[in-house]
Amino acid sequence: MKLHVLSLALPLLAAPLTAEEGMWLPRQIPLLAPQLAAAGLELEPRRLAELTGDPLGAVVSLGGCSASFVSSEGLIVTNHHCITRTLQYNSTPERDLVADGFLAATRADEPQAAPGSYVYVTTELRDVTAEVLAGLSEEVPDAEWDARVERRSRELVDACEAPGGVRCRVASFYEGALFLEIGQIEIRDVRLVYAPAEAIGNFGGEIDNWMWPRHTGDWGFLRAYVGPDGRPADPSPANVPYRPRRWLEVSTEGVEEGDLVWIAGYPGRTYRYRTAAEVRAAREFEMPEYVRWARALITLLEREDERGREVALANYGRQRGYANAMKKYEGILLGLRDGAVERQRAEREAAMRAADGLGPATADVLDQLAAWTARGRERERLDHALDWLGRSSPMLDQAIELWRFAEERAKPDLERAEGYRERDRTRFEQALARAQRSIEPGSDRATLRWALEQALDLPAGQRIAALDRKLAATAVPDDAARLEALLDTLYGGTRIGDLAERQRMAAETGERLAARGDAMLDFARELAPELAARRAFEGERRGAMLRLRPRYLGALERAEGGRLYPDANSTLRFTYGVVTGYAPRDAVRYLPRTTLGGLLAKATGQKPFAPPATLLAAAGRVPRPYIDSRLGDVPVDFLSTCDITGGNSGSPTLDARGRLVGLAFDGNYEGVVSDYRFDSELARTIQVDATYMRFVMDAVDRAHHLLREMGLPVYTAE
Amino acid sequence: MKLHVLSLALPLLAAPLTAEEGMWLPRQIPLLAPQLAAAGLELEPRRLAELTGDPLGAVVSLGGCSASFVSSEGLIVTNHHCITRTLQYNSTPERDLVADGFLAATRADEPQAAPGSYVYVTTELRDVTAEVLAGLSEEVPDAEWDARVERRSRELVDACEAPGGVRCRVASFYEGALFLEIGQIEIRDVRLVYAPAEAIGNFGGEIDNWMWPRHTGDWGFLRAYVGPDGRPADPSPANVPYRPRRWLEVSTEGVEEGDLVWIAGYPGRTYRYRTAAEVRAAREFEMPEYVRWARALITLLEREDERGREVALANYGRQRGYANAMKKYEGILLGLRDGAVERQRAEREAAMRAADGLGPATADVLDQLAAWTARGRERERLDHALDWLGRSSPMLDQAIELWRFAEERAKPDLERAEGYRERDRTRFEQALARAQRSIEPGSDRATLRWALEQALDLPAGQRIAALDRKLAATAVPDDAARLEALLDTLYGGTRIGDLAERQRMAAETGERLAARGDAMLDFARELAPELAARRAFEGERRGAMLRLRPRYLGALERAEGGRLYPDANSTLRFTYGVVTGYAPRDAVRYLPRTTLGGLLAKATGQKPFAPPATLLAAAGRVPRPYIDSRLGDVPVDFLSTCDITGGNSGSPTLDARGRLVGLAFDGNYEGVVSDYRFDSELARTIQVDATYMRFVMDAVDRAHHLLREMGLPVYTAE
Repeated sequence: MKLHVLSLALPLLAAPLTAEEGMWLPRQIPLLAPQLAAAGLELEPRRLAELTGDPLGAVVSLGGCSASFVSSEGLIVTNHHCITRTLQYNSTPERDLVADGFLAATRADEPQAAPGSYVYVTTELRDVTAEVLAGLSEEVPDAEWDARVERRSRELVDACEAPGGVRCRVASFYEGALFLEIGQIEIRDVRLVYAPAEAIGNFGGEIDNWMWPRHTGDWGFLRAYVGPDGRPADPSPANVPYRPRRWLEVSTEGVEEGDLVWIAGYPGRTYRYRTAAEVRAAREFEMPEYVRWARALITLLEREDERGREVALANYGRQRGYANAMKKYEGILLGLRDGAVERQRAEREAAMRAADGLGPATADVLDQLAAWTARGRERERLDHALDWLGRSSPMLDQAIELWRFAEERAKPDLERAEGYRERDRTRFEQALARAQRSIEPGSDRATLRWALEQALDLPAGQRIAALDRKLAATAVPDDAARLEALLDTLYGGTRIGDLAERQRMAAETGERLAARGDAMLDFARELAPELAARRAFEGERRGAMLRLRPRYLGALERAEGGRLYPDANSTLRFTYGVVTGYAPRDAVRYLPRTTLGGLLAKATGQKPFAPPATLLAAAGRVPRPYIDSRLGDVPVDFLSTCDITGGNSGSPTLDARGRLVGLAFDGNYEGVVSDYRFDSELARTIQVDATYMRFVMDAVDRAHHLLREMGLPVYTAE
Repeated sequence: MKLHVLSLALPLLAAPLTAEEGMWLPRQIPLLAPQLAAAGLELEPRRLAELTGDPLGAVVSLGGCSASFVSSEGLIVTNHHCITRTLQYNSTPERDLVADGFLAATRADEPQAAPGSYVYVTTELRDVTAEVLAGLSEEVPDAEWDARVERRSRELVDACEAPGGVRCRVASFYEGALFLEIGQIEIRDVRLVYAPAEAIGNFGGEIDNWMWPRHTGDWGFLRAYVGPDGRPADPSPANVPYRPRRWLEVSTEGVEEGDLVWIAGYPGRTYRYRTAAEVRAAREFEMPEYVRWARALITLLEREDERGREVALANYGRQRGYANAMKKYEGILLGLRDGAVERQRAEREAAMRAADGLGPATADVLDQLAAWTARGRERERLDHALDWLGRSSPMLDQAIELWRFAEERAKPDLERAEGYRERDRTRFEQALARAQRSIEPGSDRATLRWALEQALDLPAGQRIAALDRKLAATAVPDDAARLEALLDTLYGGTRIGDLAERQRMAAETGERLAARGDAMLDFARELAPELAARRAFEGERRGAMLRLRPRYLGALERAEGGRLYPDANSTLRFTYGVVTGYAPRDAVRYLPRTTLGGLLAKATGQKPFAPPATLLAAAGRVPRPYIDSRLGDVPVDFLSTCDITGGNSGSPTLDARGRLVGLAFDGNYEGVVSDYRFDSELARTIQVDATYMRFVMDAVDRAHHLLREMGLPVYTAE
């Protein structure tokens, strides 16, 4: 047992393996001091390590996105794409805030953000490794290992949250070598302040998504509100703007090629320490299979969309979600195509096996990891099909969730799975309400049909028994007709599409739900044992990984002679880099900054390349301070070598003095493989330049009061 | 009458309007001496003006492509895509020379090129302006003007060709201000020597067509043969290699960024002196309509292709032809989109009208040109539909051609149209044979159906009367059924798809053809009056242009204060430039040279990105002399600012000392608008680097004897 916490927690935390690679824990920043000084950072690294200090205290999570305070009055800046839901929520048939943008003239005009919008301010990180792992030894079976870690984490969370006003979680770092308890102030009254028109905020749309050169004005503003006592409170007219201890200064100087920049935010998930066999599994099956399903479902939904605007609106979120991940996976697959990542891992593993002093234990760990990969691959098709039942059908997904919630609620709270505890009830109900947007029975049926057709093709040994039983029960001769009969039953006999009904269901026991005789719920109930078996397998695997991975990482660290940063896990991280372009392919060089002139050259007038007339007009008379002297134009977006991933969206990008110079909003297509291996030659963060944001706020959207609130100059007349 | 030949013929011929713009007549080169010296040319410009001198005497036309002699034994190098037809012609079911390439081990192994392959060596240019225009005055009606010019040209051609062994034409320059009689030795025994595999010669295929960065090895070798007496002769085993007076030396030094290069070749057609209204007509109707038709026909043919390999092979040429022009027009439309070209022309025309001393005559010319454009636009839909009847159906095209040939043959030879005279008979018969490759009745019917559907949508006043009559005659109620009935008749009642039958038809009179009762021929016969009316309109317009354009150009020259080069017209031209990249769009820079490493990075293993195993193997052990020291790799393709267009394919690109450093094979997408206006910032010629050609010939295809024949070193073992 000792092996796996050994020297990992801190000795790993020093110099990065390569220049800009690394999503560092705040506590690791002081260890980067020499590199940061050499790179030109003018701040004291020790200061950057302080969670509640300046500037890190200004960086917040929106849950899935990152953001930062930019005024003493709780003003928050994040990405436009992080507040789309809030814009939709506040739109009416007469007034489309997504398309037209929004600007609250006064605080009284700031509408509530969509339900489920939170602002999380990290205030505490506490090492709880000893508590979490106490008493766990090699003899503990894998499933039990996982269960105990989960249980202790829940206990710690409950104790942490007991005083109130704080949301806690226990996060595993280095894949189980380090556990940190994270305490966050949870602000639940969040309001919409300002967003540019979609034609600015999502300029380039799906076509430019993941792409450079880019001309997207991907920003939006929220405001955090709290009770008059300054503590988080439910939304109320009595609430007042939250007064953060820290907020960021927005730079009026901008960035130049070669400048040091750094980013603080909440990256979601990376896989940098995966073995060769695990990378191969992702390349051979997981990602291509995702792409195949996503492409098929998008095509089906596009056909459904032709039925009308209502249908298209319901399907919009699903299509964008599939498309976004599909394009990312396509990019990763391209990056993995030449086999270099797998080769590097295989060589590394061979070196680890061969290294003196690592002993047979390392070989044993590698063998066990390999065995787990093999076990996973034996059931990968079944698992994929099970996972995608809900992904293919918002209605079946709701049924599965409701049934699961009823099952979990039958247990004592402390034994329920994360997401189904009493503390999760509000979020669960918000999710029910949110799902309503994507429910469109005709489209639902079309995509579920496809998912079930795929399930019918599963090989023996990986069949979904509940589905086979259901189909057999239709007593119809051929496969296609049987499927239609089942779909007729499912969609003809369910009220799952009705939000009020679902809200009632959410309060019912399993027995009551079963007694409803709702066809979709019944299908979810019949699928439940297989879904539970899938989770049990995952739990056992997770336990094994918690046992094995820290040893693997320890051996890796010794074999490589380098120091490691932990994979991303949606906790606050620090990354630094430099503003620079890249060479995407032979004979092509990308410069690191785009311009307003470039945006205009791209403007076809057709969506998503149709900038608003107000921008075109303002482009004709740009106040001089917004013109970058080197570009001779207004800068729009820029690249940096910072190391980010999904979840970092909305993160502030700061300069050497800690001033906000941009907002990270995307990675580049050629670099997305960096979720698996960071390639400093190719991986780039795409950020919108704060100068462009200021220009649009000043000359296009006339958000002068917000500029003043941020202490920024205004150059155009009111 | 005087106005239009005034000072134009020579005073125009001096400095170019911008640095690298200009497709110069050889006789103009000495006038460029200062610029050429400044650019670094080490050759005497006067020497470059000599048609039969060194090096211009080595540059030849293949009719549609350009090429050059590279040995004293008649060895010719051109583009791979210029000899595809010859490779197909020599392929057998067992041996696909397009796919696999070909190398003749000895001269005895050099097979005949496809029928219709000629090599033209320009030996004489004679100013015949006075003869052509003698007696033409303003009073001569436009149609008559055209007819007289045509007639005199034919008389001059006949006189020129009388001694034998030479092919002549009279070409109009400056749109009628200058007429040159061009005499060319016509070599008609042409043989195939060597071509790389398609995976090298057409690497990147349709996807990379018109695109940079590029990695295409677009070269192929032919050899010219003549009779034992050294004069052109019909193909015969007794023939011997032609011994040209001049051949090019292939450089072993290569090019670098910034080097001067120049190109001699036969550019086909440009429109640099079109008026604003003419450009608008092309932008609004001609090009988008081409794109629309081409896209529709390609889609239809792709569907037909699914019927099998034979069908796909028959349609291949049509599809590539449509796709190539479509992509070019799309690029031009993109280049015209911002309206800058039309604005520039409109301003120029306004300036011409306003300029002192130009007098009302200029305004009159502009008014007349505008009236002609308007007349053309009134019938543009009809003309387009008529032109595309044959383009949409190789079978109907053959019927139209055969009927026309019969009509023309009824006239005295001197009165027949170009292409239908006795001197054209061999070519006509070769074209009949060549058409057989593209005849596939199912596909023909599918695309003709589409064309006729479009014709049914023509507005009143632009209807095809013969088609309307035909359809009415079917006595079927609805449009679609009528069309099917007509198609049933056409394809059920024709022998036009049979080559032997067509060959017989080519010898028959109109009466005999009519008596056949062949449905397709009958349709062509019924269409003939409307096609003739279309030609008559074109003749009248041509006459008007011959009358007006020289005056327009004269006024333009005086208004601009610059000197003009003539638009491309498939005659020998000279262009020079520099090896340099470009900025295709905001934040993107293209370097001017690609590398073997870049080719390998593009190699997916899927067509058209699947280099042969022999290339992959050779890439692993490249002889040092092929490695460019600056690139650290084998150069593959490079860009220059030379000014070319279609017809220049295969042209030698030469260095400051006149050595061959590459072969021009394409223009870049962003620059194709240069057919209308040359944009020195964006227009680039794409050439394959002679170093790559030498490397492949040496290390991949082992064409060692050819390298030695060219006096080039060989670095790999036999």
